[in-house]
Amino acid sequence: MDYGERSLIIHEQLRGKIAVSSKLPIESQDDLSIAYTPGVARPCEVIAEDPSKARDLTLKRNTVAVVSDGSSVLGLGNIGPLAAIPVMEGKAVLFKQYANIDAWPICVDTQDADEIIETVRRIAPVFGGINLEDISAPRCFEVEDRLQDLGIPVFHDDQHGTAIVLLAAMLNAAKVVGKKPEDLRIVINGAGAAGTAIAKLLRCIDQDPEVCTPVSDVVICDSKGAIHSGREDLNPQKKALLRFTNRENHAGNLKEVLEGADVFVGVSKGNLIDRHDVARMAKDSIILAMANPTPEIMPDEAKAGGAAVVGTGRSDFPNQVNNVLAFPGIFRGALDAQARQITPEMKIAAAHALAGTVEELCAEKILPSPLNPTVAPLVARAVAAACK
Amino acid sequence: MDYGERSLIIHEQLRGKIAVSSKLPIESQDDLSIAYTPGVARPCEVIAEDPSKARDLTLKRNTVAVVSDGSSVLGLGNIGPLAAIPVMEGKAVLFKQYANIDAWPICVDTQDADEIIETVRRIAPVFGGINLEDISAPRCFEVEDRLQDLGIPVFHDDQHGTAIVLLAAMLNAAKVVGKKPEDLRIVINGAGAAGTAIAKLLRCIDQDPEVCTPVSDVVICDSKGAIHSGREDLNPQKKALLRFTNRENHAGNLKEVLEGADVFVGVSKGNLIDRHDVARMAKDSIILAMANPTPEIMPDEAKAGGAAVVGTGRSDFPNQVNNVLAFPGIFRGALDAQARQITPEMKIAAAHALAGTVEELCAEKILPSPLNPTVAPLVARAVAAACK
Repeated sequence: MDYGERSLIIHEQLRGKIAVSSKLPIESQDDLSIAYTPGVARPCEVIAEDPSKARDLTLKRNTVAVVSDGSSVLGLGNIGPLAAIPVMEGKAVLFKQYANIDAWPICVDTQDADEIIETVRRIAPVFGGINLEDISAPRCFEVEDRLQDLGIPVFHDDQHGTAIVLLAAMLNAAKVVGKKPEDLRIVINGAGAAGTAIAKLLRCIDQDPEVCTPVSDVVICDSKGAIHSGREDLNPQKKALLRFTNRENHAGNLKEVLEGADVFVGVSKGNLIDRHDVARMAKDSIILAMANPTPEIMPDEAKAGGAAVVGTGRSDFPNQVNNVLAFPGIFRGALDAQARQITPEMKIAAAHALAGTVEELCAEKILPSPLNPTVAPLVARAVAAACK
Repeated sequence: MDYGERSLIIHEQLRGKIAVSSKLPIESQDDLSIAYTPGVARPCEVIAEDPSKARDLTLKRNTVAVVSDGSSVLGLGNIGPLAAIPVMEGKAVLFKQYANIDAWPICVDTQDADEIIETVRRIAPVFGGINLEDISAPRCFEVEDRLQDLGIPVFHDDQHGTAIVLLAAMLNAAKVVGKKPEDLRIVINGAGAAGTAIAKLLRCIDQDPEVCTPVSDVVICDSKGAIHSGREDLNPQKKALLRFTNRENHAGNLKEVLEGADVFVGVSKGNLIDRHDVARMAKDSIILAMANPTPEIMPDEAKAGGAAVVGTGRSDFPNQVNNVLAFPGIFRGALDAQARQITPEMKIAAAHALAGTVEELCAEKILPSPLNPTVAPLVARAVAAACK
C-alpha cells in the first residue's frame, strides 16, 4: 500500500495527530484550588501588573501557532483551511518531536491578506511565535512583511525554511566539489515563495554585509524563462527580483540560461530538464531538484549528464532537502532567546549550523538525516546566539 | 501559604499548565512519510472533497477553543487577554481531566464585540466547539447570540455553566425541603451574565413548553434593588428581563423583595444579607450564595436565620456550586453528538442529569463533588441524548 492510503488509515484511527495534555493532574480539592480558582487569580494579577511575566507564568514561552489559509497546500493547491488541517497537525507533531515546542494549528477561514494579518494580531497573546504555512504567493510576502512588528517571531516556512536548508546544502555541496560559494553561478527555476526567499538569502539581501558574502550571480526563471529587464509581463514581486538577480540580464528559457551554470535549484515541477542540459552546465555541477513527488530531473539522469552532487526533496534518494531540518531548531532558538523577529542573521546562522552537523561530508551526504535528533538543538543554539 | 502564593509558585515552575502532545512518534522515515509528506496529502484530498470528513480525520472532533477577551476575569475585572491566560489554561486542564477534551486557550487582543465575533468565525475550522469565557456583560450576550449560526456549539460558560449547576442545586434543594420547583419564589441578586442566564433557565425561556415547567416567579435585583417596570434607569438588557421576571412587579431593595421568598440566589458580591433577612423569607428557605471568595451570606449566618439548605461557590463549605460540574460533560456530549448548537433542551438535560448524580441526598449534599469523575460522563450522555 502506498504512503497516501496508509496515511489515510492512520488518520482515521487517530482522529487527530496531536492532543492537549495537562501538566497538573487534579486529584484533590487542593489541586483544583491551585490550577483554577481561587489560586489562579494570583498569577493573573502578576501578569496584569507586568505583561512580560506572561512568559514566566504561562504556556506562551513555548507555543507556536501554525497558521494557514489553505491556499497553497503541498502540491494540492487551494484546498481551503479545513482540508489543510492534516498538514498543520503534522507540523505540530514535528515541532514537538524535534524541538519540544507546543505548536497548535490555526487554519483561518479567510484568504484575504488584511484579514489574515488582523486575525494573527488578535490571537497573538497566547503564542510565542507564528509559523505561516502553505499560504500562496504573492499574498504570503505581504502577510509576513506586515506582521514583523508583532513582537514575536513571524516566519513563513515555505519561504525561509526551504531557503535555509537549501543554503546549507549548497554550502556543503560547494565544499565537496571544491568551489567557493561566492563564485557560484546559480539558476533557480520557480519564482514563487521558495524561489524568491532562496535568491534573497543567497544574495544576502537585508543582511549585514560584514557577516554575509553573497554568491556572485543568481538567475531566476519562471514558466516563461529567465526573469530579465526586457520582459513586460512581470508582476511587482517579480520585477523586484531584478534588483538583486540576473546581473548580466540573461534572456532565454531555462535550458538556455542553464548553460555554464554551477548550480541548478528547482522549486517548480517534475521532469523539466535532462542529462543533455546538465552536460552543458559547468564542470562538477550541483543539482538540487526539489519538486515533489517528481523532481525536475531524477538523480540518475542528472548524474548521467555529469552532475557531481544531486539532492532532491525525496526521502528515497540521498541528500533530502527537507524543511524539518530547519524550522524546529529555528523556532526553538527564537523562543529561547525571546526573539521579537527571526532576522536574516539568524537565518544565515541556522544554515551554517545545519551544514556543520554533517560528519564525513561527501557527494552522497551533504545534509543530515531528517531523523537525526541532534540537528534541531544545534541549529537552535546557533539561532539563539545570532539573536541580538 | 495561601492558595494564591502557592499557585504562583506552581505557575512559575510549570510555565504552562498544558502542553501539546503527539500521538505519532516519528522514529523512522516511514513515520515521517505518513504523519507528514508525502502521505498526508491523501487525508487532505479526502477532506477537500467532503468537508464533513474533517471530523473523522483530524483533531476537530475533540477540540474546544476557550475564548476570552480578558474583560471580566474572575473577580479581577478587565485585566486584558494576556493576564487572562492562566484562567483559560486552567479551563483546558479541567476539560482534559474530566472529559478528555483537547481545549486550547484563545485570548483575543480586542474587546470589540464585532471583532471578537469575526475572529471566532475565522479560527473555527480546527475546533469542534467554542467555550466563551470571562467576557463582560452586556457584550457577552451579543457575542454568543450572533455566533449561534457557526455550525459548532458556542457556549458562554459564565452564563449557562453557572445556570445549569444552579438549577441542579435548586432541584435537589427543593426535594430536600419538600417543595415543588415550579412553586418556588426566587430572588436573584446580580443582573449580569450569570443572573440573566439563571433567570432564563428557571423560567424556561426559549424552551419547549412540553418538556419544561417554569418556576412561578423570579425577581432579579441589581445594585439598586428589584428590576421592575417603574425604573427608568434600565439598559436594554435589563429591560428585556421584565418580559419573564417579576410577575407581580415588586419594587424595593434586595432585603425588601426577599421577604417571603423561598430561594435566594446570589451572583453578586460578599456580605449583603444577614440572618434577619433570611428569617423573613419563607419557611425552609434555600440560600445559594455564590459570590467569591466571600459569599453574600456565610453559611453559619444563613442557618442561624433558619435556612434549610445552603450552598456557596466555595470548596471549604458543603454544596459547592462549581461550573466544573457542568462544562466538561456538556461539551463532551455536544462533541459526541456533533451538535451544531447547545440548545435549551440540552442545558435542561444537563441540569437534571447533574442533579441525578447525587446519592444520599440531604441538606449538606445537594451537589456531587467537583472531583467526582463519573459526573461528566453522565452529564455528557444526557446532553448527547437531548441533541436533535
